[in-house]
Amino acid sequence: MTTYDLIMKKRRGGELSEDEIQWLIMSYVSGDVPDYQMSAFLMAVCFSSMTAKETAALTLAMMNSGDVYDLSEELGTCVDKHSTGGVGDKVTLIAAPICAACGVKVPKMSGKGLGHTGGTIDKLESIPGFRTALSHDEFIDIVNKAGFAVASQTGSLVPADKKIYDLRNATATVDCIPLISSSVMSKKLATGASCIVLDVKSGDGAFMKTDEDAESLSLSMISAARSLGRKCSAIITDMSKPLGRNVGNGLEVIEAAEALKGRCPADLYEICMAISAHMMSLAGAGTVDECRIKAEKAISSGDAFCAFEKMTELQGGNSHALTDYSLLGKAKNILEVRSPKSGYINRISCEKTGLIALSLGAGRKTKESSVDPTAGIIFERTVGDHVNKGAVLGTVMSSSVNDLSGIGEEFTKVFGFSEKAVPCRPSVIKEISG
Amino acid sequence: MTTYDLIMKKRRGGELSEDEIQWLIMSYVSGDVPDYQMSAFLMAVCFSSMTAKETAALTLAMMNSGDVYDLSEELGTCVDKHSTGGVGDKVTLIAAPICAACGVKVPKMSGKGLGHTGGTIDKLESIPGFRTALSHDEFIDIVNKAGFAVASQTGSLVPADKKIYDLRNATATVDCIPLISSSVMSKKLATGASCIVLDVKSGDGAFMKTDEDAESLSLSMISAARSLGRKCSAIITDMSKPLGRNVGNGLEVIEAAEALKGRCPADLYEICMAISAHMMSLAGAGTVDECRIKAEKAISSGDAFCAFEKMTELQGGNSHALTDYSLLGKAKNILEVRSPKSGYINRISCEKTGLIALSLGAGRKTKESSVDPTAGIIFERTVGDHVNKGAVLGTVMSSSVNDLSGIGEEFTKVFGFSEKAVPCRPSVIKEISG
Repeated sequence: MTTYDLIMKKRRGGELSEDEIQWLIMSYVSGDVPDYQMSAFLMAVCFSSMTAKETAALTLAMMNSGDVYDLSEELGTCVDKHSTGGVGDKVTLIAAPICAACGVKVPKMSGKGLGHTGGTIDKLESIPGFRTALSHDEFIDIVNKAGFAVASQTGSLVPADKKIYDLRNATATVDCIPLISSSVMSKKLATGASCIVLDVKSGDGAFMKTDEDAESLSLSMISAARSLGRKCSAIITDMSKPLGRNVGNGLEVIEAAEALKGRCPADLYEICMAISAHMMSLAGAGTVDECRIKAEKAISSGDAFCAFEKMTELQGGNSHALTDYSLLGKAKNILEVRSPKSGYINRISCEKTGLIALSLGAGRKTKESSVDPTAGIIFERTVGDHVNKGAVLGTVMSSSVNDLSGIGEEFTKVFGFSEKAVPCRPSVIKEISG
Repeated sequence: MTTYDLIMKKRRGGELSEDEIQWLIMSYVSGDVPDYQMSAFLMAVCFSSMTAKETAALTLAMMNSGDVYDLSEELGTCVDKHSTGGVGDKVTLIAAPICAACGVKVPKMSGKGLGHTGGTIDKLESIPGFRTALSHDEFIDIVNKAGFAVASQTGSLVPADKKIYDLRNATATVDCIPLISSSVMSKKLATGASCIVLDVKSGDGAFMKTDEDAESLSLSMISAARSLGRKCSAIITDMSKPLGRNVGNGLEVIEAAEALKGRCPADLYEICMAISAHMMSLAGAGTVDECRIKAEKAISSGDAFCAFEKMTELQGGNSHALTDYSLLGKAKNILEVRSPKSGYINRISCEKTGLIALSLGAGRKTKESSVDPTAGIIFERTVGDHVNKGAVLGTVMSSSVNDLSGIGEEFTKVFGFSEKAVPCRPSVIKEISG
């Protein structure tokens, strides 16, 4: 077996065996296969794709390149969730406490965000005192006590993914379904939850621009998970506009806390209900419909919010900040942005929103940057709303940018307007049960 | 402009501009673009291909990466030929002296062979004393005196091709028409002949397995040459079986000398006539039909053989070896191989023939190997012939391998047999005039 043969086999559209894929990944991680052969192979995969069997083998090989946990041994049945990423995505902060409140454990490991907004870790770290660098024992202990915990990923998890992802990023091979699937699932599977719910974003603001691509990616990931003995469901959700009303780390913690108190924008609510119902159902808490009722009750009873408070305390955070939001800090500079024209909002660009959040300081430009927890955007209007010229579209805020007038001007360009009302895309597009 | 953008553009099937291609090649040669990005780009080209405009731009960019000669300044109209490579290909040794005898100058630069048999340089170096490392002035002087000369290529010619070819060789991106085309033509154009005839081999034993692919490659190379102001024709010729009867360096010099004396196997004769007629015609010596008559006369008059003798003398070789073949040396070990069965020969495998020639010592296993000038194969029978069991199929010979019995056994497997006679594929499949 030579790397050349494997590249040629894939170039010719052939199916690699499990052994071949295992050998290739191990040899790449060890440095025996050079970057230039791997990048040629990855480009061939972009064109020739991979079968479900190959994708599962790739996922397994990547997973086995580093530490592999089996949380079900320590925690029993537990459930993880993963989002393919979007603007304003604070679903974990809502769905995990809901599950916890219903007795379903959620041990969540997460990475730091890079790009338009921070990751779940960055959002939680806007709470004063909150720690995500937990030892394994501490992590398990908090999950057992609060029902969920959120820890930052350690470097020894799936080193193959790190190396391959960097290469894909330099060689225009990022957006390829089997490669995305194996990258996501190798990490999810290595962290060891027995059940996984995938929130697969679809639309302009997501990796998957169409519902068909989102479904292909969902099926690919579900298939990889199942072939490795895990339960897995996928929910395809809308990312044609930012999710919810707040974008930015502290602002998203506020929106999540509000949601757990029963005040949630409809789009965010629908997605959180679907995701938590599937998470609980996979973990054996009943049918999806039964679990959805439990999820609704966990909010109305206040149990979900209590779980969030408890987890926050156990991870060293000041849980009062979840009620007295001034404890999260306040942006030094705030600007209300007004509509330049009258009409119906027919579009809110995720990409432009993300870039504005980044320029406000809510995201990281490079891996070394730090995030401004107070920076972000609050949308006052959303797609489908009618606005008059001069009405407030939203608020931009930052502690690092002093003159917000330029960004405010840019913010008006985030919106598209039409004379007639446009129908709103549903938030939950498809549920693929495991 | 970033390398990432260019890779993505090609992955998406877009057409790169001349500036973009020029920048990419220069940056790769200078080391600013790493191998892993270039190999991803090359794999994307294998799938998305290149337009004629892109191939011409790539050819030009590669050509300009090193020294560029303009032989027409020093020699006036002159003609070069190139073969895409096959087993038993000694056409240059016959067509060049024919052209020279008819007053058409052929300044030929050539590389050493790697693989199954030696290159033109290796073949000529089997003549005692023959030198191919000529200074530029010496090269021009010999062309002017003998009508043609054959010099080994210098290292400063098209360094981009060297670097890209090594990468393609390691990443399974060799057999891709625009990449082959630009590799061949950048070198041909850099050596500076005003007219070029391409011998594009087609069949099992060639890079191009089908006549359609051979035609695509021909059109791609012709288009690149023309866009850079050169005249170019292509002849698609058969490589479904070894060309002629002799395979091996000294043995091919003998076959060429015999051909120039009027004793030539039909397949080789047809190709040499077509190639020389097109070479002369491109150089302005008349129509292809007129030039073919001149070519035939150059052989029957003995003028072509005289030109070969003269060139040999001027390049330091002993021209008596072209008549007294014992001066070329004789293999120490010779084995006649007999047919294991009776029937019609319906196939002679080029690949197996090449591997046998290599194991006899006629080719190079690595760049550093030396070739055995006496090693090789003489075919006694060819496709279409009837043989009885026990009849001599051919002779294998070597000075480095002592026990030829194993190779002799392998040699019988080169042949395919059938009960009925099969029609022979024509030698000259298509002529594409410039």
